[in-house]
Amino acid sequence: MNDHPSATLAAFAATLRVQDIPAPVVRRTEDLFLDWLGSTLAGKSARAVQAIERYALAMGPALRAGDEGGAEVLISRRLTSPHFAAMVNAAASHVVEQDDVHNGSVFHPAAVVFPAALATAQAIGCSGRELLAASVAGYEVGIRVGEFLGRSHYRIFHTTATAGTLAAAAATGRLLGLDATTMLHAFGSAGTQAAGLWEFLRDAADSKQLHCAHAASAGLASAWLAKDGFTGARRILEGEQGLGAGMSSDADPARLVAGLGQRWATAETSFKYHASCRHTHPSADALQALMRRERLAADDIAAVATLVHQGAIDVLGRVVVPATVHQGKFSMGTVLGLVAEFGQAGLDEFDRHFLAPRVAAFRDRVAMRLDAEVDGAYPQRWIGKVEVRTTDGRLLHARVDEPKGDPGNTLSRAELEDKARRLAAYGDAATPAEMDGLIARTWALADTPRLGRLLP
Amino acid sequence: MNDHPSATLAAFAATLRVQDIPAPVVRRTEDLFLDWLGSTLAGKSARAVQAIERYALAMGPALRAGDEGGAEVLISRRLTSPHFAAMVNAAASHVVEQDDVHNGSVFHPAAVVFPAALATAQAIGCSGRELLAASVAGYEVGIRVGEFLGRSHYRIFHTTATAGTLAAAAATGRLLGLDATTMLHAFGSAGTQAAGLWEFLRDAADSKQLHCAHAASAGLASAWLAKDGFTGARRILEGEQGLGAGMSSDADPARLVAGLGQRWATAETSFKYHASCRHTHPSADALQALMRRERLAADDIAAVATLVHQGAIDVLGRVVVPATVHQGKFSMGTVLGLVAEFGQAGLDEFDRHFLAPRVAAFRDRVAMRLDAEVDGAYPQRWIGKVEVRTTDGRLLHARVDEPKGDPGNTLSRAELEDKARRLAAYGDAATPAEMDGLIARTWALADTPRLGRLLP
Repeated sequence: MNDHPSATLAAFAATLRVQDIPAPVVRRTEDLFLDWLGSTLAGKSARAVQAIERYALAMGPALRAGDEGGAEVLISRRLTSPHFAAMVNAAASHVVEQDDVHNGSVFHPAAVVFPAALATAQAIGCSGRELLAASVAGYEVGIRVGEFLGRSHYRIFHTTATAGTLAAAAATGRLLGLDATTMLHAFGSAGTQAAGLWEFLRDAADSKQLHCAHAASAGLASAWLAKDGFTGARRILEGEQGLGAGMSSDADPARLVAGLGQRWATAETSFKYHASCRHTHPSADALQALMRRERLAADDIAAVATLVHQGAIDVLGRVVVPATVHQGKFSMGTVLGLVAEFGQAGLDEFDRHFLAPRVAAFRDRVAMRLDAEVDGAYPQRWIGKVEVRTTDGRLLHARVDEPKGDPGNTLSRAELEDKARRLAAYGDAATPAEMDGLIARTWALADTPRLGRLLP
Repeated sequence: MNDHPSATLAAFAATLRVQDIPAPVVRRTEDLFLDWLGSTLAGKSARAVQAIERYALAMGPALRAGDEGGAEVLISRRLTSPHFAAMVNAAASHVVEQDDVHNGSVFHPAAVVFPAALATAQAIGCSGRELLAASVAGYEVGIRVGEFLGRSHYRIFHTTATAGTLAAAAATGRLLGLDATTMLHAFGSAGTQAAGLWEFLRDAADSKQLHCAHAASAGLASAWLAKDGFTGARRILEGEQGLGAGMSSDADPARLVAGLGQRWATAETSFKYHASCRHTHPSADALQALMRRERLAADDIAAVATLVHQGAIDVLGRVVVPATVHQGKFSMGTVLGLVAEFGQAGLDEFDRHFLAPRVAAFRDRVAMRLDAEVDGAYPQRWIGKVEVRTTDGRLLHARVDEPKGDPGNTLSRAELEDKARRLAAYGDAATPAEMDGLIARTWALADTPRLGRLLP
């Protein structure tokens, strides 16, 4: 049975225990969970998310505190079945695009793994340790499936949707206690429901939210069905009529099992820090570091040169004066202006201040310049370098070797808490006191004997 | 907006009215609906179907008679939300493989269209005429999407699952009164969830039931979401990152709109008559015709030569004495033995009599012989020819030019009623009196002002 990659991966997911996972990876999983909670709460008011919540309300059961088997819709605080809780929470978690990302697989694990895992854990009353182990199983599986499907897949398919269905099944299956054989059936059912095309981008349609909702709920369903004896293909990933054959031209089954139990892909996942285009992040980080180091205020700065790779100039060069918030996120000067004025360029700063006079004035003091070192290192490394001329005539330099949020320059727990609070406030989805409780419950996950509601 | 095939197809589906459809096509749709009801009831006791019904029971609401918005799970007679009613009815409808098929698109429309349409019609209280028009919209869309995706798609993907998601969305969207623009959004959401791989065949896994369940419920969801303002890609079928680009190498957008409103693909759909391999059907039909014409009983027949195409010999030649019911369906002698003894080779005859002594004795009097005319006409025409030697020494011939159930040799309403009754009895899912009511309600659909429950 276990002689092929899908089976090996399923056996790994079925048997993973917290004690097998290095402690730093478990701690990182707690970090990722808090980061996901914030992203989900931030999505509360998005039109597309609310439509999916109304669908769940129309089609799912309305449960009350004390009812058996309920799970929590974080944005509305309703209790419903895990199928629909997973669906709505997943739809919400990716909409402000502040959720985590695994660079190598171009996959957003949190948006599909945690919705399915939390819903199942709440419904059947798992411990926090079980939730953490299951989430790691979901991350490890989803990232490897994304790597397996490769670049040709990503050109047409939204990997978070497709690999995400298997990731959600793996996490759910671990919580349901599936054995290796049954987990493989869950993979079969999940893989044969994997879907999600990039075509919606052309019309800026709402499909991204649907993709996450579908991946989380279909993955969850696959595991619940497998628990009940429903069977699936044993080689859904690498088989002749499987996912790789149908949706990739460079699928590599070896990637499904590479370093399993040794390499923790979960810990390679990056947090998003600034709410802007990724190409602005290295420069924003370098400016922030320089201003802290030199104790400068925005008014102390006469000019900024950002030393960038060619790709940044290609993508960002056309936006001079942004007309919309979205364009502001592609304006290097605006991003640096927000960082200089407010210490950060978050969702709220963009919405409220992207055209504020002081931000616009700072924006016009920023220029991009191609830098040979930065350009040569890209895309393996995203180096940030800035040159700042102060109003008192000094020329100052700063650099960061890895953008804030990447594994080598990760966010501290204080920064993660701050980000989560800001995201929740952005969505008007939880009070500061409620966030205190949510944060405390997250850091205490490993000691929680039975998961209940996260919000009152 | 309406300048590309997806948009033209969506506009057709959004505006189709019963009065635009030729009366024989409407009558045929009633026939297809009854045939689907029987197939669905026959699936009641299948393990995979029951697992999906238990999932729906766990995840969906339990509604009572009189509750708003309920739809009927035919196999359990529960009322739940349309999402889950569609899911379970779809899972049930394809399991005994007696549901209809469109030869050109290799697509089983009933299994995905009627579950979504009936559930929505019951939930919102549509008329029978609206159900019929919506079902035709679903058939016309699904068959054309299947033809669009082409042979390369069918090699890896289960067209009933993939095209089926769009078919279900079209039927549901018509009932919800979506306009052309909104229907196109529903197509976008449906297409980006289209999934279903053949890999499960290798393991005889349960995925076929999941494929129908997924297509019907995801298609239904896509239309309900579109009604609520949720947007999708405008070119999900023919776009550069759409379904054709991702899942086909010979997709032809012209097929999406070929003959729209002129050619009624719904009426090209075939009924399945015998419960055996399709290659046995022409000979079985010819033997049945001969025995009726000559008023012969099984004991009057000393030997049968079936004159067949080479493909029949390739597929059926190896089964001499069947060991299982499934093998019996690939044994020409067994199929003809059942027809000779019982007048038909249905699910029940196979289950109970495939090895009965008289059937086995008849089986051994049957031989296949390659016939130049039959072989030359195949696969465009499936001619059936038999040569019978009677015990009193006569040599008799019979032929049928189109297998029973195909459009040119379709089933009469009496035959359809009989088939539906037998399927319901096979599933132990409705009494003869209940089937009387169900049949009467089906033939009265066009005069039903508001659809209610079909079964008590």
